[in-house]
Amino acid sequence: MKSKAQSGAGKGTEKRTSEGRFAYEGLDRVIHERARLSVLTSLITNPKGLAFGDLKQLCALTDGNLNRHLRVLEEGNMVEIVKKTDRNRSLTICRITASGRARYMEYLTTLEQVVRDAAKGAKEPSTSNRFQGLAPSQA
Amino acid sequence: MKSKAQSGAGKGTEKRTSEGRFAYEGLDRVIHERARLSVLTSLITNPKGLAFGDLKQLCALTDGNLNRHLRVLEEGNMVEIVKKTDRNRSLTICRITASGRARYMEYLTTLEQVVRDAAKGAKEPSTSNRFQGLAPSQA
Repeated sequence: MKSKAQSGAGKGTEKRTSEGRFAYEGLDRVIHERARLSVLTSLITNPKGLAFGDLKQLCALTDGNLNRHLRVLEEGNMVEIVKKTDRNRSLTICRITASGRARYMEYLTTLEQVVRDAAKGAKEPSTSNRFQGLAPSQA
Repeated sequence: MKSKAQSGAGKGTEKRTSEGRFAYEGLDRVIHERARLSVLTSLITNPKGLAFGDLKQLCALTDGNLNRHLRVLEEGNMVEIVKKTDRNRSLTICRITASGRARYMEYLTTLEQVVRDAAKGAKEPSTSNRFQGLAPSQA
């Protein structure tokens, strides 16, 4: 990241060129990956935990994929996996940890920012005139 | 994806086990990657286009990374890149295409669903009791 605040090349094209304004560094890569976002959102809405089979269904993942992503989340201390026995049946229960919850909530703050930014952009008309931006909007 | 609607293992752990409820298949991988989400959100809020240098700054990316991601988006017909000359200076302008815009808006619909789901989950108290979920909440 260079610290020059305004690049010569961009002069006049847009006013919002502040460094990293759209970098979204809060989009934690461990959480942002689609399958893991899916797993974590399932678990945050089911704070008491979910059986492996249910989680698999909710996220539409295969056993192998769910296992792989759970391992990443477990290593990151974001979920805990516990084997339980219920009427002689063995059950694997997955649950979000307190630190997983905190990290997810932080991620969510940035995600909400993306949605807000995008909604703002969505309002702008889909102009068919090409690259008028080269002319300063406020001369 | 198997079609069994309720797995035996999950019986009673949770009521919301509908297949793929949290799969978020609308999270288009081309868009979801953090740097590309950053690029596209910059471009959607600047529909007239952005100079390469400005885009680079807004997304806090290096030349190499921005080029790499722009290529992916260009191949997907989501952005167009045009060289212009402005007072003998050469400028590279990046702009979101109509189809890129449409695809991004579709992605956004799912992203908003994630935020809504997560917000719902966030409201639930961070219970310290472990795995009470094994007892059916509505017996």
